[in-house]
Amino acid sequence: MGACSREFQIESQGNNDVLNITENVARCVADTELTCAVATVFVIGSTAAITTTEYEPGLADHDLRAAFEGIAPEHGRYRHEETWHDDNGHSHVRATLVGPSLSILVVGGDLQLGTWQQIILIDFDTRPRSRRVLVQVIGD
Amino acid sequence: MGACSREFQIESQGNNDVLNITENVARCVADTELTCAVATVFVIGSTAAITTTEYEPGLADHDLRAAFEGIAPEHGRYRHEETWHDDNGHSHVRATLVGPSLSILVVGGDLQLGTWQQIILIDFDTRPRSRRVLVQVIGD
Amino acid sequence: MGACSREFQIESQGNNDVLNITENVARCVADTELTCAVATVFVIGSTAAITTTEYEPGLADHDLRAAFEGIAPEHGRYRHEETWHDDNGHSHVRATLVGPSLSILVVGGDLQLGTWQQIILIDFDTRPRSRRVLVQVIGD
Repeated sequence: MGACSREFQIESQGNNDVLNITENVARCVADTELTCAVATVFVIGSTAAITTTEYEPGLADHDLRAAFEGIAPEHGRYRHEETWHDDNGHSHVRATLVGPSLSILVVGGDLQLGTWQQIILIDFDTRPRSRRVLVQVIGD
Repeated sequence: MGACSREFQIESQGNNDVLNITENVARCVADTELTCAVATVFVIGSTAAITTTEYEPGLADHDLRAAFEGIAPEHGRYRHEETWHDDNGHSHVRATLVGPSLSILVVGGDLQLGTWQQIILIDFDTRPRSRRVLVQVIGD
Repeated sequence: MGACSREFQIESQGNNDVLNITENVARCVADTELTCAVATVFVIGSTAAITTTEYEPGLADHDLRAAFEGIAPEHGRYRHEETWHDDNGHSHVRATLVGPSLSILVVGGDLQLGTWQQIILIDFDTRPRSRRVLVQVIGD
C-alpha cells in the first residue's frame, strides 16, 4: 500500500518561483490507469502552495509576485523571523493563504482543465528548494 | 466512463459576480445516489474560483469585491495585460489566490454545510461568461 | 451510512485564533483503518477556514493575524455589518478567501505532511466558538 500514491520531485528557484506541474501530474494520473476519478495534488512543506493559473510569464513572473508582495511583503517584519533568525516569514504567510492542496477531476483518463488553465506550484521560500509533490488518484 | 462526473453550466455577469451554486451542486450529488462520499467541485477556466461564503448581498456584492480590489486592483498595472492587450490581469490574480476547486462531504446523501454557508462561484473576468462547473462524487 | 464520516468538536477563542488540529484529524484517519486514501477536512460555518502552516506562536499568533488585518481590517467598513448589525464582516471575508476545506493524502495509514507542516483551523469570528469539523476518508 505504500505505493498507492504517486509522487514526483521538482526543483525550484524559490522567491515566488511559479512552476507549471501539469505534465507531472498528468503522468501520475496516466500511470494509475484510472479513468473516472479525482486527482488530489499535495505539496509537502509549509512554504509552497498549489493552485491553477494561466501559465504565461507576465502573470507567473510579475503579476502574481506583485500581488503577494502586497499581501505579505518580503522585507516586512515577522515574528517568525525574530524567533527563528531566518528570513522567510513572508513565505509562510503566503503559503498558508493559498494552501498546499488541489483536487482536479479525471474523466476518460484525462485531467479536466481549461485551455489556459495550468496546475502550478508556487515556491515562496527564499532559496532554491527540491519539492516533493504527492498525487493520489481515487476512483474507477 | 465519460458520464462518470456531473456538470452544469451557469451564466455570470463577470466583474466579481458571486453566484450561489449550492443547489446546482446538490442536484449533481442527488443524481449519483451516493450517500457517503466527497463531492469535488471544479470550475474550468483561470478567471473564476470556487469557495463558500454566507450568501447575502452585503457580503457577496460589496465586501468581497472591496477586499479583492485591495488585493489586485481592477485598474492596476499588469504585465499580463501588456502582453495580451486585454484587461483582466486582476481577474487572473484573484482567481489564482482563491483556487478553482472545493471538496465537500456528503453524508446520508446530503451536502454538509452550515446554515449560513453556501457554495459560491466568483467570476472575476471583465465580461459576462458562461461557466462550466464539474462535480465528481466519490464514495459509497 | 450516517456514521461514514468522522467528526470532532473544537473550542476556539475566535479573533483569528489558530488551532493545530493535526492530531484530531490523525485520530479520525486511524479510526477508519484505511491505509491508502485521501482525507478531506471540512469546517462547518462561514467564519472559519482550514489550511496548513508551520504551527509556532510567532507565525500563528502574530504574522498571520497581521496579514489578514491587511487584507480585511477588523475595524473596516462592511456592508454585511450594516445589514445584520453585527461586527464580523472581516471574519466572513477572510474565511471566504482561505476556504473551508483541505485534502491530505493518507499513505500506509499515515497523513502525509512535512515535519514543520500542521493542519490548522483559523477561527475568524469575533467571539469564542465551538467548531464542528468533518473528516471523510476515501480509499482502501
